Amino acid sequence: MSATLASIDARTSLARGVVVPEATPQEVAVAVERATSAFDELRRLPAERLALLLRTVADELELLGDELLEVADAETALGPARISSERGRTTGQLRGFAELVDDGRQLEATIDTAHPDRPDLRRMLVPIGPVAVFAASNFPLAFSVPGGDTASALAAGCPVVVKASPSHPETSELCGRAIQAAVERTGLPAGTFSLLHGAGHEIGMALVTAPGIKAVGFTGSLRGGRALFDAAAGRQEPIPVYAEMGSINPLFVSPGAAAARGAAIAAGFFASMTQGSGQFCTKPGVVFVVASDADAFSAEVARLARGTRVGPMLNQGMREALAGAVAEIVAESGVELLAGELPEQEDGRLDVAATVVAVDADAFRSSPLLQEEHFGAVGVIVRCRDLAELTAIAAELPGTLTATVHAEAHEAPDVAALVEALEHKAGRLIWNGYPTGVAVTHAMHHGGPWPATTFPAHTSVGSAAIERFLRPVTFQDYPAALLPPALRDENPRGLARLVNGVMTTGEVGA
Amino acid sequence: MSATLASIDARTSLARGVVVPEATPQEVAVAVERATSAFDELRRLPAERLALLLRTVADELELLGDELLEVADAETALGPARISSERGRTTGQLRGFAELVDDGRQLEATIDTAHPDRPDLRRMLVPIGPVAVFAASNFPLAFSVPGGDTASALAAGCPVVVKASPSHPETSELCGRAIQAAVERTGLPAGTFSLLHGAGHEIGMALVTAPGIKAVGFTGSLRGGRALFDAAAGRQEPIPVYAEMGSINPLFVSPGAAAARGAAIAAGFFASMTQGSGQFCTKPGVVFVVASDADAFSAEVARLARGTRVGPMLNQGMREALAGAVAEIVAESGVELLAGELPEQEDGRLDVAATVVAVDADAFRSSPLLQEEHFGAVGVIVRCRDLAELTAIAAELPGTLTATVHAEAHEAPDVAALVEALEHKAGRLIWNGYPTGVAVTHAMHHGGPWPATTFPAHTSVGSAAIERFLRPVTFQDYPAALLPPALRDENPRGLARLVNGVMTTGEVGA
Repeated sequence: MSATLASIDARTSLARGVVVPEATPQEVAVAVERATSAFDELRRLPAERLALLLRTVADELELLGDELLEVADAETALGPARISSERGRTTGQLRGFAELVDDGRQLEATIDTAHPDRPDLRRMLVPIGPVAVFAASNFPLAFSVPGGDTASALAAGCPVVVKASPSHPETSELCGRAIQAAVERTGLPAGTFSLLHGAGHEIGMALVTAPGIKAVGFTGSLRGGRALFDAAAGRQEPIPVYAEMGSINPLFVSPGAAAARGAAIAAGFFASMTQGSGQFCTKPGVVFVVASDADAFSAEVARLARGTRVGPMLNQGMREALAGAVAEIVAESGVELLAGELPEQEDGRLDVAATVVAVDADAFRSSPLLQEEHFGAVGVIVRCRDLAELTAIAAELPGTLTATVHAEAHEAPDVAALVEALEHKAGRLIWNGYPTGVAVTHAMHHGGPWPATTFPAHTSVGSAAIERFLRPVTFQDYPAALLPPALRDENPRGLARLVNGVMTTGEVGA
Repeated sequence: MSATLASIDARTSLARGVVVPEATPQEVAVAVERATSAFDELRRLPAERLALLLRTVADELELLGDELLEVADAETALGPARISSERGRTTGQLRGFAELVDDGRQLEATIDTAHPDRPDLRRMLVPIGPVAVFAASNFPLAFSVPGGDTASALAAGCPVVVKASPSHPETSELCGRAIQAAVERTGLPAGTFSLLHGAGHEIGMALVTAPGIKAVGFTGSLRGGRALFDAAAGRQEPIPVYAEMGSINPLFVSPGAAAARGAAIAAGFFASMTQGSGQFCTKPGVVFVVASDADAFSAEVARLARGTRVGPMLNQGMREALAGAVAEIVAESGVELLAGELPEQEDGRLDVAATVVAVDADAFRSSPLLQEEHFGAVGVIVRCRDLAELTAIAAELPGTLTATVHAEAHEAPDVAALVEALEHKAGRLIWNGYPTGVAVTHAMHHGGPWPATTFPAHTSVGSAAIERFLRPVTFQDYPAALLPPALRDENPRGLARLVNGVMTTGEVGA
């Protein structure tokens, strides 16, 4: 009998009575083998078939109706409103990628016609091959089985093998069956999509080291991402692991902003830090304030935090990790606990105290622990001497997904150096706002320098996420009969193409 | 006294009397430190300053006049015509990247204006940071100190530290000084460009593991590329090594093509295989022919090869490596030597016999050695039973930069499956041509699946090469005063931008 993995209610820590089978290494090999076979068919499909698949996945997810919402809420305790909006984001994302596939912009079709100095050269992007996706625990839909990694890989024409998060197995099963139903309804090979469960590292490692896998998408911890990255880099044929990992998402408050609206920023920071029980990759973990403003700002955040319990957290492991981190942070030299007792657990309940600490810039600088992401509702307020120290410390921070500056309009010249330092550290710079909430648009970038991600040039949200799963091929002097439609003279799909250096939707030579 | 590296005449193996100092690990650290300081200035430069730098480097290379041609020819023995055309390619490439910088297309400026559902989001690409470039031995200009990696990194706004090839130190010095003169003439910080020499691996490893280096460009052997890739992946902050490495560049000859023009293809293959003494990364190393055509084809290649000496090779190490490889190939089971004796060296001369061997498909399949690149004028003819075996073997090959099909127009349906298999293996597919010669155009792709390169999504030739050294940043709700010009409403540079999903060169809101 094979091992199983139980679905746990995040509000009670009790088993919900549903179990899923854990995959064996043999099943990993079979899934990759089927993905490899499917790839041969998938990469020759006309674009409209891929777009139809993506739209059908969205439809199938909606057909699951309230059952999906209820199961996802039970397994995550994120609440019905959040789960419902996350479903909208997930289906919207799938349909957005379908539009991109229809548009064909992502193929980057480029033609240089023959010339006395050179042959006829025609370049386009093609799918890279079977992709492994590691689902996140904190977004049971949008960054999980039917999430952005799966959607962008399928949109690229790559078969997908998903390793589900053990934190929400029944949600994963429901979504996996919806995707499989869509694959079947649209007449694609069954190996286009497979779902694997596993609680430990064995299945994940087997997947990343399977020779048939050509790229990996991952959302999770720095430790998990690094382990997969190392395994993939150590293969005989190394492959990229696009991992979105830890991020402290610093917030900087200028003297002017603190004076004009310090209490409002404190409230905004606290709301952003505790949203989703602090279980966002864009949670603001550290806020830098000038010392003269720090007391009032800290007092306001502490007032909001005091006695506030957030959660439940996603699972027992997350709660234990947070409790351990808070204990270590409070024990760190120079750290002052403003709010949030060391949490003791009652009756398997996964809620926690919102924790806020304060520290001077020098103590922050000398503590690697304070410069790391801590998943959950814990925030660090760092007192800096002045704006110059605020700017200097920005240049020393690790890479991060986002960095936020609060300042008054008239202070723009004063914070220009701070913004420049942050541009070097972050993937998204926010002005007078808060980092939680990642819009799915063309101009979004959800990425950043190490340790925020493994490859700062790539995003896991927005249309550019597809670039991770494509590679160029150039056809030299090829006959029309053997060229992909996107590169033929007559441009049957009416794509926007770069022809001899000029963008055009027309035919070549017309 | 520090160690030195001598310039060697490739035609005589004698020292030319010029030596360059080998860098110490301390000098590597200083170069990276200076690059890091320069980056702060470089990344804020207006585009026209970067474009001016690239054009001035081209001018300075031309100012070196005949001296550069003579030194490069002496150190490589590639011949005056080749060196002269390579200089034209190198300066053309630099000026091409200057045009790209002027155009601004590579910034991918994208704007989504504010909307009830989302903030104002503006995305563009920014330089990734200091780049290390490892120069190749076989292109002393175009893939060396002033080559495509250096040009594309500078065009991105990244400072460059080059590790020169020990095979042409004086050429490297001349080019390095020309670049430094251009940096000075255009008023850029001296750390924008540094040149390091080193014969062993120590300097290269120190460079790749220096924390200030954010990406690496490399052209060379699989072994060298892999060692750098592993070192970079093992860093605390891993960085990408864009390595262009070994490639067998297979050629497939259909029965129709063999019947119609077998002798011409044999001559074309032999010319391509021996061009530059077989020292091209695009050298066709293996040709697949149907057995019934193989005798005539092999006889013609053998006739051309018999008694032909090519070279001199670039250096003694290359010649020894080739002699060793030929000895191993000939000793391989089933291999028949058609032309080319085991070369014995006379008087330090670096010329070699053109070597051609033939083998059956089964013996080829069971020999990893025959499926590897061998640098130099050695070619393998593989006899396949029929077109089906030709197609089957294509699907088993390692990744390669190029793959070539020779077939008649009426055979297009018969070779469609072969072309499909090759699309999965190669970065450039060539029809009725030869792989040597890589045009620098928009539609060129010089890359391919492992072991051709470390990242099949990237190219080291053509305008897309710049993508390796850029990363996105998104500005959310930023005030105009703090936005880069490329993202301001008024579009001062008149860039083509994606605004709310539509490409436009206009202002936002106009």
